[in-house]
Amino acid sequence: MTYGAALLETHPDVTAELDLKPLVAAIDATLDCAQACSTCASACLAGKSVADLRPCIRTDLACADICAATARVLSRQPIDDLATVRALLEAGVAVCAVCAEECESHAAMHEHCRICAEACRRCEQACRDLLGTMT
Amino acid sequence: MTYGAALLETHPDVTAELDLKPLVAAIDATLDCAQACSTCASACLAGKSVADLRPCIRTDLACADICAATARVLSRQPIDDLATVRALLEAGVAVCAVCAEECESHAAMHEHCRICAEACRRCEQACRDLLGTMT
Amino acid sequence: MTYGAALLETHPDVTAELDLKPLVAAIDATLDCAQACSTCASACLAGKSVADLRPCIRTDLACADICAATARVLSRQPIDDLATVRALLEAGVAVCAVCAEECESHAAMHEHCRICAEACRRCEQACRDLLGTMT
Amino acid sequence: MTYGAALLETHPDVTAELDLKPLVAAIDATLDCAQACSTCASACLAGKSVADLRPCIRTDLACADICAATARVLSRQPIDDLATVRALLEAGVAVCAVCAEECESHAAMHEHCRICAEACRRCEQACRDLLGTMT
Repeated sequence: MTYGAALLETHPDVTAELDLKPLVAAIDATLDCAQACSTCASACLAGKSVADLRPCIRTDLACADICAATARVLSRQPIDDLATVRALLEAGVAVCAVCAEECESHAAMHEHCRICAEACRRCEQACRDLLGTMT
Repeated sequence: MTYGAALLETHPDVTAELDLKPLVAAIDATLDCAQACSTCASACLAGKSVADLRPCIRTDLACADICAATARVLSRQPIDDLATVRALLEAGVAVCAVCAEECESHAAMHEHCRICAEACRRCEQACRDLLGTMT
Repeated sequence: MTYGAALLETHPDVTAELDLKPLVAAIDATLDCAQACSTCASACLAGKSVADLRPCIRTDLACADICAATARVLSRQPIDDLATVRALLEAGVAVCAVCAEECESHAAMHEHCRICAEACRRCEQACRDLLGTMT
Repeated sequence: MTYGAALLETHPDVTAELDLKPLVAAIDATLDCAQACSTCASACLAGKSVADLRPCIRTDLACADICAATARVLSRQPIDDLATVRALLEAGVAVCAVCAEECESHAAMHEHCRICAEACRRCEQACRDLLGTMT
């Protein structure tokens, strides 16, 4: 069990409108994705193809920033405004999809991109799943 | 002139689809708002009415996280995916509006809330203005 | 295997002065600790004893900020300046020790504090271990 | 007057051990420096010399992360543990000095590096000044 799950289970006041399971899954997925993207950006920057990988580095960094903010907002319970969370999850879905596509396009050459694409796809799905429970 | 403006003016490759003036205004406003919200949260937490101000503290912290991430994403040029920026600006508009309303509701009693509400309204407008140039 | 570990193993240029095992352990521990502290702050804020738990909330938030920054800096390889990393790890050790002590002092009453104290102690040790390999 | 200053002046409980003036100066300088470094990293990445500027990009990103965390920790009042703040300010001094030196070394060629070096030097000094009042 992750710290996200363990702590939310002991939290005195989690937003009733959100199911705990997809909420915890989204927190874990955004944290993993932020970390995968930070390291992928660093690996892309350090390698020989840095000039070609610039869009990948920028998208990695954007994805890391948005996912890290999303994890923080989701972990802060109860949530006072679901409209904000919905918009933030939409941003997460958008950036994860773009970052996954970018990383997939050179996954054959760069193992860090292959792994990062996987984390982005999982995070995209977790954000979609949580959004699905909010309508 | 702020560092945001000065540096973007020397940047070799700013997204052509974005006008520099509303872009710099949005960066400055999100940075100011993040700082106003962080300090307002701290002031609300330290005062006598902490139990009543809990929704204000949570909204301040969410607004600070989202605005800080938005400032970073907007400062990273060129922007590779306008859809992500659009969704993130929508989240910024949403959280700034809620935070402004919350802070305005006790601005008469807490000067830090009055000032923070002002920063949130200015940021909400700056995000709307930039969104307006992107359609 | 965490994404931190997987990606660093595929990174083209990790600082030679750092052993991969304690480096990955420190990255994982700072990420876990940041998440534990964010949720503990939220739980402390939401509960009945909020007025008494204010130092715990502030220390949780400081620990989350410092650990999140440390995870990012450690994940960005190669590291160009070990003196900065050393100072940042010292800050991590300091804030984790204070946050652990604070949380331990009411671990009997608040399960989220007990779990958070555990994450802080583990992170304090991981930062010390990495510092130990750097001298 | 910045939002940092305005809000701290309305804060009900600022740490007595810290003078407000160097505290506010350090908050403002770390915020400016974080923003300068984020944009400088983006400009270095976008330009023709990206391969040569990799150490500059990495140091910019580290400086942005550490300064942003420092601004947040300093803005959260009262401060419960001065030892943590001292260690964090030491990390700020270290990373600002390195980043300034790095940016100065190619300031003649890149205007964004010249401006960023200036922000780093000012921040290094503001952190030193605040440290000087804490002993």
